[in-house]
Amino acid sequence: MLPYKSLIQVDRNASVSLHIQVCNMFISLITSGTLQPADILPGSRVLAQLIGINRNTVKLAYEELVSQGWAESVERKGVFVLSKLPVLSRPAVPEPGKNNPHHEAFTWTNKFENAWITKGPEKEMLTIDGGFPDVRLTPVDLLMREYRSLSRRLYGKNYLKYGSSKGSENLRTAICSYLSHTRGLSVPVENIVITKGSQMGIYLATQLLINPGDSVAVGLSNYVLADDTFRYAGANLVRIPVDTYGMDIDHLETILQYRSIKAVYIIPHHHYPTTVTMSTERRLKLLKLATEYRFAIIEDDYDFDFHYNNKPYLPLASIDHNQNVIYIGSVTKTFAPALRIGFMTGPSAFVNAAAALRELIDKQGDTVLEEAFAVLFNNGEMERYFRKSLKIYRQRRNLLCQILQSDFSNDITFNVPEGGLAVWANFNEQIDLVKLAEDAAKKRLQIDDGSFYKNESYAVNGIRMGFASLDENETIKALELLKKVLH
Amino acid sequence: MLPYKSLIQVDRNASVSLHIQVCNMFISLITSGTLQPADILPGSRVLAQLIGINRNTVKLAYEELVSQGWAESVERKGVFVLSKLPVLSRPAVPEPGKNNPHHEAFTWTNKFENAWITKGPEKEMLTIDGGFPDVRLTPVDLLMREYRSLSRRLYGKNYLKYGSSKGSENLRTAICSYLSHTRGLSVPVENIVITKGSQMGIYLATQLLINPGDSVAVGLSNYVLADDTFRYAGANLVRIPVDTYGMDIDHLETILQYRSIKAVYIIPHHHYPTTVTMSTERRLKLLKLATEYRFAIIEDDYDFDFHYNNKPYLPLASIDHNQNVIYIGSVTKTFAPALRIGFMTGPSAFVNAAAALRELIDKQGDTVLEEAFAVLFNNGEMERYFRKSLKIYRQRRNLLCQILQSDFSNDITFNVPEGGLAVWANFNEQIDLVKLAEDAAKKRLQIDDGSFYKNESYAVNGIRMGFASLDENETIKALELLKKVLH
Repeated sequence: MLPYKSLIQVDRNASVSLHIQVCNMFISLITSGTLQPADILPGSRVLAQLIGINRNTVKLAYEELVSQGWAESVERKGVFVLSKLPVLSRPAVPEPGKNNPHHEAFTWTNKFENAWITKGPEKEMLTIDGGFPDVRLTPVDLLMREYRSLSRRLYGKNYLKYGSSKGSENLRTAICSYLSHTRGLSVPVENIVITKGSQMGIYLATQLLINPGDSVAVGLSNYVLADDTFRYAGANLVRIPVDTYGMDIDHLETILQYRSIKAVYIIPHHHYPTTVTMSTERRLKLLKLATEYRFAIIEDDYDFDFHYNNKPYLPLASIDHNQNVIYIGSVTKTFAPALRIGFMTGPSAFVNAAAALRELIDKQGDTVLEEAFAVLFNNGEMERYFRKSLKIYRQRRNLLCQILQSDFSNDITFNVPEGGLAVWANFNEQIDLVKLAEDAAKKRLQIDDGSFYKNESYAVNGIRMGFASLDENETIKALELLKKVLH
Repeated sequence: MLPYKSLIQVDRNASVSLHIQVCNMFISLITSGTLQPADILPGSRVLAQLIGINRNTVKLAYEELVSQGWAESVERKGVFVLSKLPVLSRPAVPEPGKNNPHHEAFTWTNKFENAWITKGPEKEMLTIDGGFPDVRLTPVDLLMREYRSLSRRLYGKNYLKYGSSKGSENLRTAICSYLSHTRGLSVPVENIVITKGSQMGIYLATQLLINPGDSVAVGLSNYVLADDTFRYAGANLVRIPVDTYGMDIDHLETILQYRSIKAVYIIPHHHYPTTVTMSTERRLKLLKLATEYRFAIIEDDYDFDFHYNNKPYLPLASIDHNQNVIYIGSVTKTFAPALRIGFMTGPSAFVNAAAALRELIDKQGDTVLEEAFAVLFNNGEMERYFRKSLKIYRQRRNLLCQILQSDFSNDITFNVPEGGLAVWANFNEQIDLVKLAEDAAKKRLQIDDGSFYKNESYAVNGIRMGFASLDENETIKALELLKKVLH
């Protein structure tokens, strides 16, 4: 007989009843091959005594085994493992090797072996991030109050059931009106799909536009997750230089004369990572080329809400009479990264297809959160927050730039950004950013090591220094630490 | 001079300042071609009088136009549209036609022309759904209390910033322990990725496994959004018959002898739409075949938590010693469809790749919601809810089945389901389900028209009749209405 006393051990405090625990342990003995088909199970009296439980519990466990098809009971003989059960092979996980790099039991191609995976931020470390909002300034509690009160009011109502894959109609209506007020962009409510942040807008647009082998024009420097999204769809990236007026559209034109481009991805307001704004002349020329060469412009305008000098430039989408522009925006980036709400607009068939694809990806968004945001747009809280935070972020930008100017002029060159939440800081060539980040971490300062901003054709020694998420004292302290690490 | 009085109209109540409104209207006149490069703008005094605003406002608007690069100011001559601006072509959207079915300004292939898009449910209509939980029974308010209190406690803390793309570690730990207690499934915390409902699990697994041209085995009847997800990835569907013991694995074996299969998608507990449970013998045989032929098993176990007779069968994942199973579960389906939380487990490289892909799709989930669910798992509220609702759903299942038996025996055949939230109801061939659904809607009863359950090889005259979301009175009323519509 098998050593059942050690093989079968029950936990009287578990939430699963004792007979199910015993049953499951027998299943495990059968599937691991310890018990073979047609093997006899120990008598209920014997087992009960061995493992110290009531005999009826053992009987119940055996009944369960029989009813689930693992065993059969033969009158006067006992309970046997079902003889016709297929025998599972012993764990036969192949060794890793040339032909079997992932040593998995099934075949698949891992396209993500060296992929970028965000880990949560280090806790309790002073962080110079890449340009995130200060969640302490956002009306998160107002949002949560709405969220909870909506869910209570709608308890058992339709908002908690499945909704439209285009997203909440109330939020789409609120965003329509917000787009029209803030940037003269008129789109019908049906031409908006609510996304989880701007990243999902990029993903949806890419999947709909790109077939493997298509070309996408992107900045020589670019947002790496956009590059990765295009590559994942099988796109070839065509890198276009970016200067102080944004992407070099004349250069793009030269390329268009001999090469077909399916889409151009731009962040005209303000380019990532360098924060430059695309000039009006280039915007108009890009629109003209799009009409001529029939490509799509993916306009990622996640940064629109923060601008400090003039009023912001109108997006290309606002002056696009030919419907070449797929316009992507974000509420996430201006509110709190973890509350993921964004939107995408475009021609109506395109937006409908995006909603259908979204249905395959995750059915729909969080309807209650979307409704709560709609309330905040409609009662003016969002605008109050934008106004308030704009003023504070301008001060923070000025402070950071002032300190960089006075204390870091030998180490860092930069331009004061017109908008957005970060300064693009080019470090002196002698400074090793990876080492700098390591040294800073030892002093409890978290700072980028620059690798996020590089790509196969862009080797820069720079990082984005976010000024929005740190208050005055924190900024001063962070830069003092940085100074110490540098010298 | 252009008729500026009608072209430029300002709204004194708008949140955008007057000079920006005027500026934006001039931009619109320029981009639409009404104003051409080098055209002169009206003098500020003239325009101010025409449209009834202060002359300084006009001056500010012109300064804004100049600073944004739309116009230039020539001393003593006036303000002119910038002469070197590219002229945008007039809207030249091509007419729809054979070569241009979408009549968009750019080229793309619409794979979603006839796609299924969920619209929100009709408001205030009694609904026999396909098997959703009763959101009135779920502890939504407890969840919301946690959600709000977490977000308040963590205000400015890391949970509102970007988190791991695998999802909250607290929730992953809670789900690990829940999987181990409820179904003997031991997985390391790193091998779990939190998803938005089970649909995202299906999408991620499919994208990682399937290359265009690969074959996926699915039930002859199957969950249509899974079929669509496989097809979207370019898979060929191989349909396997499903009988009262689940998918016919002997049939699958015959096919494997001459055809390579990349993955087998099953809903063993309980099949969708027919609610049958896969037998133990078939489960073991499928695992054996997977080891032999090295395919992946995508086990969609969204329905695990609801079972009324015995304890549920262990998932294939729990008895899979060879790591062939990718296991997908849902909290959404058991809680509230709009609060989208699910999970996927599998070999560790596979789960890491899923997290990397997720980063491209939407960066991460809603960290605060994930943390709130973790609290409810850890303080026992989830289990209390499961126990309570199980009892109520069993009663509701029994009631529905009893009425179907006594009042609909000529119209509907069905088996009492062992678990899940719906009865699979086969209607008499003479009943036109589309017409039935239309007639029912006229009596304010919403009911499926059966199209969701059909596919290219499965023409059934059936619908899933959910019993969970209606209380006793509602069930009685809904079935009385259905009876009236039928006869």
